[in-house]
Amino acid sequence: MANEYTLYSMQESGNCYKPRLLLHLLGLPLRLIETDPRDGATKRPEFRAINPNGRVPLLVLADGRLLSESNAILLYLAEGTKYLPADRYERAQVHQWLFFEQYEHEPQIAVARSYLHTYPDRKAKVTPELIAGWQQKGGRALSVIESRLAGHDWLVGSGYTVADIALYAYTHVAHEGGYDLAQYPGIGRWLARIAATPRHVPLEWRP
Amino acid sequence: MANEYTLYSMQESGNCYKPRLLLHLLGLPLRLIETDPRDGATKRPEFRAINPNGRVPLLVLADGRLLSESNAILLYLAEGTKYLPADRYERAQVHQWLFFEQYEHEPQIAVARSYLHTYPDRKAKVTPELIAGWQQKGGRALSVIESRLAGHDWLVGSGYTVADIALYAYTHVAHEGGYDLAQYPGIGRWLARIAATPRHVPLEWRP
Repeated sequence: MANEYTLYSMQESGNCYKPRLLLHLLGLPLRLIETDPRDGATKRPEFRAINPNGRVPLLVLADGRLLSESNAILLYLAEGTKYLPADRYERAQVHQWLFFEQYEHEPQIAVARSYLHTYPDRKAKVTPELIAGWQQKGGRALSVIESRLAGHDWLVGSGYTVADIALYAYTHVAHEGGYDLAQYPGIGRWLARIAATPRHVPLEWRP
Repeated sequence: MANEYTLYSMQESGNCYKPRLLLHLLGLPLRLIETDPRDGATKRPEFRAINPNGRVPLLVLADGRLLSESNAILLYLAEGTKYLPADRYERAQVHQWLFFEQYEHEPQIAVARSYLHTYPDRKAKVTPELIAGWQQKGGRALSVIESRLAGHDWLVGSGYTVADIALYAYTHVAHEGGYDLAQYPGIGRWLARIAATPRHVPLEWRP
């Protein structure tokens, strides 16, 4: 199909779930190429040749051009849709949350989940100091999200945007990294709100 | 002045340098409010009330609305200017580099500089293992940049964009974090190219 997107993806990854979810919400066809970082697939020269940074997700457009970085992929796909506000300031607030997600949230919450849940063989490397750091810094990031969601339904404006998708990806599985989401009632209501949207698909879903 | 921007800033910070440089390139007037994280200014309730994440830079628009995250501020200010491509795919590539900068580059290179140069009182906390991690991961990020700049003048397309500003901010002072930039000739030529652009101002510059 001419308009089909191809995504190099890893099923367990929240970063890869972001474009899978958005493409499904938009009703856009997707071809998935599953990669397994555990066997070094993304570190091999043939993958490095198309993404020097050696990471997934990697989106291949219908004309073969490539795009990496999960949040850059979200912004690309959302352009001109209701998932990216047309208002300049609201769009800037979406960007603000996307950078917050990659700097303050993912490096703590996704990494904690990775060590404690996704790759059990890594558990031997986990020290009490590592867990305390993840808890403290990841908990701080969750508090920043809660400060918005305590009084609002969505992270930006009055509707569901790619800011919500980006922060949903690892927040909804934060318990797998040892976080207690019961402390954040606004986040709890927001997670349920997202899961109830039409065409929502869970992380486990494949096209 | 009605169109004046106010920036909560910290002079030594590369993240705060990004909007200072772009505002000067654009000829936009700027009022600077210098903050000193060492005295806890950004952690106090009055600052947390305007930025729950407690970080600078923080941009105040003429109408009082706020925007945080250095790269979100760059995208906001660059909209409609030559520093942000009009082409959808080139804009996506700018976003890709901005997320790369905050995830792969800043947490290694800016943090190494912070411990080894900006705050000498932190040097006692620096272990050989920390330095080795910064060198390995930050060096990897520099190699990814070099893979682009070995054959191109700019990170995206054929002109100077906010992707270049974002990655210039901490790359041009990477030696202060112990990195040897002589290993990256494409980066070296690019740093000189940026420093030679009209209206360029150095990190030390204040409006």
